Amino acid sequence: MDKNQSLHACIKDDLLNQIKSGDFQKGEKIPTELELCQTYEVSRTTVRSALHQLTLEGHLVRKQGKGTFVAEKKVNQTLSPTMDSFNEQVTTQGKKPDISLIDIKVIPAEERLAQSLTVSPNDPIQRIERKRYVNEEPTQYEISYIPWTIAPGVTKNHAETSLFEALAEEFNVSIHKTTEHIEITLADEQVSSILQCEPGHPCFYIETITEDKEGRKVEFSRSYFRGDKTNFTIERNYD
Amino acid sequence: MDKNQSLHACIKDDLLNQIKSGDFQKGEKIPTELELCQTYEVSRTTVRSALHQLTLEGHLVRKQGKGTFVAEKKVNQTLSPTMDSFNEQVTTQGKKPDISLIDIKVIPAEERLAQSLTVSPNDPIQRIERKRYVNEEPTQYEISYIPWTIAPGVTKNHAETSLFEALAEEFNVSIHKTTEHIEITLADEQVSSILQCEPGHPCFYIETITEDKEGRKVEFSRSYFRGDKTNFTIERNYD
Repeated sequence: MDKNQSLHACIKDDLLNQIKSGDFQKGEKIPTELELCQTYEVSRTTVRSALHQLTLEGHLVRKQGKGTFVAEKKVNQTLSPTMDSFNEQVTTQGKKPDISLIDIKVIPAEERLAQSLTVSPNDPIQRIERKRYVNEEPTQYEISYIPWTIAPGVTKNHAETSLFEALAEEFNVSIHKTTEHIEITLADEQVSSILQCEPGHPCFYIETITEDKEGRKVEFSRSYFRGDKTNFTIERNYD
Repeated sequence: MDKNQSLHACIKDDLLNQIKSGDFQKGEKIPTELELCQTYEVSRTTVRSALHQLTLEGHLVRKQGKGTFVAEKKVNQTLSPTMDSFNEQVTTQGKKPDISLIDIKVIPAEERLAQSLTVSPNDPIQRIERKRYVNEEPTQYEISYIPWTIAPGVTKNHAETSLFEALAEEFNVSIHKTTEHIEITLADEQVSSILQCEPGHPCFYIETITEDKEGRKVEFSRSYFRGDKTNFTIERNYD
């Protein structure tokens, strides 16, 4: 444990180390508050504060009347170049992916959308609103904007399988480059109701611009990911 | 504005669009609560709620008795492969970077550190704790762990300029690959006191493993970034 840390931060760190090193297995019940008080020789308030933080961050799950358990591993998505779809990435982690279409419609491009997609204001844009699930729990809320001229008539079926696959196979658009901006946002009422978390819950917010080989903007998307259920991995090589 | 959104989420979105499209310039004072109530024809509570969220997310700054202003742009760091240092990336954005060493010492590798760096438990590890600033404000708190055998005797001076430069030039270690894990964490007391934010403030937490050409783990680092002051960009190419 590092010095200069408050007591509960030390205990939080120590428990997190035990979770990450596998001393505590996922799904395993951890010692009770009382037992932890005795182990660390600290007050109940200190233990509670550590457990509370670990729960908010998605490392522990508290079950009413049953105790505190190590959470399932977060859903990991790569941000390195990969052709593996969300489904493939999730399946590899032994989890079950799913997607549902919330809404699909054509809207006129407002100013910022027109800028992002380099189209003229009021050009027709397909707005596709979807929710992704992992093991039956909603983890990602995604709004995609695809210009009508790029892929006229995206269907419910395209949206519920893979948009990129549909772009490639039905509309002859091949993805060449994505540019992503990652921020932290706090769930507003809509996001929290879709992701089933409290309003104000910290989420990853990613805006993505996708281009084809000719540099045409083929998609702009806005995605919200529950912060306590998601992490990202990036590999970079330097030569 | 999208439908199915609560009123304050709509207003938040609309203001954010105006900020992102440049209709509101950074540093500019935005209309008062009362003016916004009139523009959007909503209650003061609704306007306040939108402004509060935008402030928490770092898009607006409220100055006591002066009004609400558009925040400076967040510090953007790339997560694509680049040899540009933090200093270069920040300077390019017209901001002033700085770094200060909090502590440097040699510690024995505990279990998880030994695992991460593929060294034996209790091997000597240099623990380097630093704080990065942008325009005089702390934005990043970083703890680096470098095995003694990789770079014996890292100095204060190395730590206050560039560790990677020191590794390359003084210790003949050249960086080949980094693997980063990104999560959202809530600032504990130590992180919040270093980054000058409230405890519980949402932060990016990035763990990085750095390897050289021979696949030796040359550094493990843990970094905390203020969520309201930082965003990341990633470019990916597909062929």
